[in-house]
Amino acid sequence: MNNYILQNENALYYECGFSCDHAIFLKLGSEAFFITDARYTTEASEAIANATVLEGARGDLLKTARLLIRKSGIKSLCYNPAEWDVEAYAKLSETLRITFCKRPNFSQQKRMIKTKGELELLKKAAHFGKEAFEHFGVFLKQHGKGMDEKRAFFEAEAILKHHGALGISFEPIVAFGENAAKPHALPTCKTLQEDELILFDAGVKYERYCSDRTRTTCFNERLCFEKEQHFSDALKQKVYDTVLRAQEAALKAVRVGVKTNEIDKAAREVIDKAGFGSYFVHSTGHGVGLDIHELPIISARSKTVIEENMVFTIEPGIYLPKQFGVRIEDTIIVRNNGAEIMG
Amino acid sequence: MNNYILQNENALYYECGFSCDHAIFLKLGSEAFFITDARYTTEASEAIANATVLEGARGDLLKTARLLIRKSGIKSLCYNPAEWDVEAYAKLSETLRITFCKRPNFSQQKRMIKTKGELELLKKAAHFGKEAFEHFGVFLKQHGKGMDEKRAFFEAEAILKHHGALGISFEPIVAFGENAAKPHALPTCKTLQEDELILFDAGVKYERYCSDRTRTTCFNERLCFEKEQHFSDALKQKVYDTVLRAQEAALKAVRVGVKTNEIDKAAREVIDKAGFGSYFVHSTGHGVGLDIHELPIISARSKTVIEENMVFTIEPGIYLPKQFGVRIEDTIIVRNNGAEIMG
Repeated sequence: MNNYILQNENALYYECGFSCDHAIFLKLGSEAFFITDARYTTEASEAIANATVLEGARGDLLKTARLLIRKSGIKSLCYNPAEWDVEAYAKLSETLRITFCKRPNFSQQKRMIKTKGELELLKKAAHFGKEAFEHFGVFLKQHGKGMDEKRAFFEAEAILKHHGALGISFEPIVAFGENAAKPHALPTCKTLQEDELILFDAGVKYERYCSDRTRTTCFNERLCFEKEQHFSDALKQKVYDTVLRAQEAALKAVRVGVKTNEIDKAAREVIDKAGFGSYFVHSTGHGVGLDIHELPIISARSKTVIEENMVFTIEPGIYLPKQFGVRIEDTIIVRNNGAEIMG
Repeated sequence: MNNYILQNENALYYECGFSCDHAIFLKLGSEAFFITDARYTTEASEAIANATVLEGARGDLLKTARLLIRKSGIKSLCYNPAEWDVEAYAKLSETLRITFCKRPNFSQQKRMIKTKGELELLKKAAHFGKEAFEHFGVFLKQHGKGMDEKRAFFEAEAILKHHGALGISFEPIVAFGENAAKPHALPTCKTLQEDELILFDAGVKYERYCSDRTRTTCFNERLCFEKEQHFSDALKQKVYDTVLRAQEAALKAVRVGVKTNEIDKAAREVIDKAGFGSYFVHSTGHGVGLDIHELPIISARSKTVIEENMVFTIEPGIYLPKQFGVRIEDTIIVRNNGAEIMG
């Protein structure tokens, strides 16, 4: 691909080590341009070495992009149709007599197999992410009794951020009891009671690379975010053990050359057999990198062939509406001999 | 507008009091539908009274939307071209034989004039936002010496969030000295020195409605985020006073019936006359509501006629590259007799 245009922040960062919320990256043969507005040009010029930084004419970045494209004499330009809204795409393309080539997620495609440097950053992120789980566990055990989800969410964020040294890769999910039956629960005023189930899904960013992890535990004197868990309630224990076995099966299925749907199938079969198939309502995993959700997708319908140094989550779950939910998630690197769990 | 489709989170919330990050709202005559995936259906069903909550077939929300549209027999459907990416729009429209009507920002258009209830929420947000400025000022005066921007940013966030009771309307800008010359500075490891300029731009969300405010001050024993400021450096004082006069002029220009570009002009003239015209690199303001940036835009090119109960910011600024920057921002309600500053 010689000529392409990008505006997604992480795609921009991948190209030139800098991004902001209003910019276009343009690759025209051997030349590259980073077009932004006056708020960001100072920072962009300081940070970018491999592209010419330009200020959009009167803040109109697309106009500047059109001028550069016209001047370059290129005949075709690749773009990601998911990255351009109908309005912006019309503005970009309407007066240009070149071919626009749809390349869905081409930036994520090229980012799917991680470099050694990226793996180092992802492992650092996973390390700090795991550390935050440990600290949050200690915190909850000491102070959790009667605390509501909103407060626990706030404390979790503070712990994840390591007092400002790190960003978070998404808003953590802190769900108690029946609220954990919602796979993407928002924090409520619900307070934590003795023996109640706790689901915690969280990640940090280290130099923009994300971590992602989920653990499910129980509020009692043994509270911890390890994988071994004991519930006094038999149904909870059964559901937990099923999810854990499903995760183990999926982890075992990770091998260079298999397809992503085979990994999903490995997890889904365990849950189906235990009779909870209809309560595993999402896919088994997703790629992790600069984006918290990127390629490959590990689902029943995805057929990406697994390659070495891909990074993705394995996160089966069972959600019993109005009762509780269990999810166990790790982020792994594909190695020659199988999955390496990070963190 | 009888038939329309929306997917922006705040637009969805405005329609039915609930939203999540993967949903479509469909209004087909007298019927309304909220289509989401299995992760959110439980919460959506509990929260939404004025629309039928549906789960997208195999997580494919657009497919379900197409079925409903076909079944309804409607002839045309309004959509916001900025809300749909090229790929999703193609999926939505390709097999439907109806007319798609472009209605740029129609949700923000109808949200431009706030209801009494919305104004109450915005005032609450402004109140809590201002309170955070006061607390952050006290904190910085006591602990700021030698603190880096990243740590100050983290502390600002915690103060803004009122220990988890509130969300933030955007990542606050905490910039010291020359970093304040970047209108949208990201926090760095730069540490705060005696007599250094501090720019703080921050807002909170109260029941999803945003506040927005900026103050510029100086790190000394008189540090506070009030509008009256004294700088030992004559250039800083001159720039500060110019921005303050520009803001006052713009505030005075706010009246029912004037156009938004006239308000921008009032601010820009003051700064031009003082010789800093080329350093006021952004527009004078933007609407505030569910979105932190919404309509109307207060810029040199915008020509919206001001009406009662619009809410927007007035925030002129001057940025001297590699030296410092000054911005003063308030969010106002348009009243019959002029601008009412909130907070």
